[in-house]
Amino acid sequence: MISYGLGPIGLVAARIVLDNNRLEIVGAIDIAEEKVSKDLGDLLTLDRKVGIRVSSNWRKVSNDSHADVVLHATGSRLEKVYSQIEDIVSAGINCVSSCEELFFPYTRHPDLSWKIDKVAREHQVTVLGTGVNPGFVMDALPLFLTGACKCVKGISVERVVDVSTRRFSLQKKVGAGLRPKEFENMVKKGTLGHVGLIETAQFLAHNLGWELDKFQEAIKPVIAQEPVSTQFFDVQKGYVVGINHTVYGVKNGERIIALTLKMYIGARDSHDVIHIEGDPDFEVLVKKGVPGDIATAAVLVNTVPLVVQAKPGLLTVKDMMLLHNMRGHEER
Amino acid sequence: MISYGLGPIGLVAARIVLDNNRLEIVGAIDIAEEKVSKDLGDLLTLDRKVGIRVSSNWRKVSNDSHADVVLHATGSRLEKVYSQIEDIVSAGINCVSSCEELFFPYTRHPDLSWKIDKVAREHQVTVLGTGVNPGFVMDALPLFLTGACKCVKGISVERVVDVSTRRFSLQKKVGAGLRPKEFENMVKKGTLGHVGLIETAQFLAHNLGWELDKFQEAIKPVIAQEPVSTQFFDVQKGYVVGINHTVYGVKNGERIIALTLKMYIGARDSHDVIHIEGDPDFEVLVKKGVPGDIATAAVLVNTVPLVVQAKPGLLTVKDMMLLHNMRGHEER
Repeated sequence: MISYGLGPIGLVAARIVLDNNRLEIVGAIDIAEEKVSKDLGDLLTLDRKVGIRVSSNWRKVSNDSHADVVLHATGSRLEKVYSQIEDIVSAGINCVSSCEELFFPYTRHPDLSWKIDKVAREHQVTVLGTGVNPGFVMDALPLFLTGACKCVKGISVERVVDVSTRRFSLQKKVGAGLRPKEFENMVKKGTLGHVGLIETAQFLAHNLGWELDKFQEAIKPVIAQEPVSTQFFDVQKGYVVGINHTVYGVKNGERIIALTLKMYIGARDSHDVIHIEGDPDFEVLVKKGVPGDIATAAVLVNTVPLVVQAKPGLLTVKDMMLLHNMRGHEER
Repeated sequence: MISYGLGPIGLVAARIVLDNNRLEIVGAIDIAEEKVSKDLGDLLTLDRKVGIRVSSNWRKVSNDSHADVVLHATGSRLEKVYSQIEDIVSAGINCVSSCEELFFPYTRHPDLSWKIDKVAREHQVTVLGTGVNPGFVMDALPLFLTGACKCVKGISVERVVDVSTRRFSLQKKVGAGLRPKEFENMVKKGTLGHVGLIETAQFLAHNLGWELDKFQEAIKPVIAQEPVSTQFFDVQKGYVVGINHTVYGVKNGERIIALTLKMYIGARDSHDVIHIEGDPDFEVLVKKGVPGDIATAAVLVNTVPLVVQAKPGLLTVKDMMLLHNMRGHEER
């Protein structure tokens, strides 16, 4: 496996793989000057060398490594990472990516999707976008739960995440510390918030065979009711502590898909709750919620063997065999 | 699709398929005299004929129908249904079965498993056992959840079912109305309780790559603390209202898999709760639990298209693409 992109997600994923004797890292790619040429062990602050030096030269690494899969974690937007994906696939290597838009790219980027699918089929490899969200908690898991229903009338998922203890870039991504007006401007420019919630809704509708009239998306600020602090931010009352992001899938005036993602500093009731409205009708609660960063890296790593076994083309998690942990038993 | 076995599960499944325009029933098999020759619509007390007559002649139905899959629901024990499975596979037809022991048959029935796998591969068809339990709530769903973990140390699942409002045969199956001594004798004879809990534990251990030292199984009665009544049973204080069935998977003296299934009259807190002990460590609660009969039939029907697409052989739900409802949107 080649680790392509050694930011927060890529590094956690690499660490998981190094602890997992079923997989082997044979190459590491990043463009950041301070990372290039370093041993992966030093970059992970392990007390040992791994014997893999970070390189910015994809062609050299892909030629030398004979990898069968790339774990790709460089960006959220498909237009920005497209040429990387094309390079990977053209080298005849399977690709699991954390790119949020790649989770279900067909609607937003039909041309790019078609191109990736074509090149992947030509080279008999598989491309897939996944992670915890999108990829698991608001889409794959709810879709799987509908398998126990004879019919489904609606799906709602609410994910509430307290970002107090999460990394700086995530707290910044949700707008912590901004004035409400700044928040609004950044939402308009598309430089704020979670990428992939529309893709999650499109994935659900597509795989359930639901033809919707429209999707409605709204990104609103969560405002501090009292001053709050984290390791990185002090937020005054009236300023932004995070986002309240909703996407609805509407049919005949009814919101039959309802996705709510609240990520803010100080959320006291972190959880994921999935309501499958149908027959049977049931509600599933993930107490405290599935943690984001570790779980995203874990989903990517656990998907590696599935992608290698899957049919060629640009696929989604719906096309994979059942995801599961593959590391073997860990002592308590 | 051929409906093979028209008991409680087979009938609900047939009804779901008749309401689902993606699938078509082209044959129906049962051996019960009172069912043979009846139109499937009459058997389901629909107000219309379906045009499919129940037959006890497998060879005729399989030859005439050109089905690509059988939904098989005749029994829990593989030894009893083996010849039926062999007939289906030998006719070159894929098979989804509710047979609990077929969910993970390799350990209890290695020879039969080997034979089924061999014949299935020869005829390029797939055989699979599934349902809600085993098949979904205590095994496939927990396994899927481990996909969000970088490591897993233990899994516990507790399923509590109030059988008060369930069918007579289920209430009887859990021992309702027996004296504790009778219950004990029937457990010894193997004529009581849930089939498949050991298979669920074996499935989890196998797919997680956990080598266990042993499995421990116990089936104990739940005793009425006060008189209780259902549509079918009046149970006096001190008599049995149901079962408390446990299976533990043990390694180095630790119970790293813990499955508890309580099915009894008057359970006030029906639910399923799954604890994935690992990193991350999280707990998933299905409020009120996934209902048994409807969900089992739904899982079987929703698995039909997956089995048709799967590779040949005797497989498990781990080998299927992601289960989901396929009926399209149902109006509220």
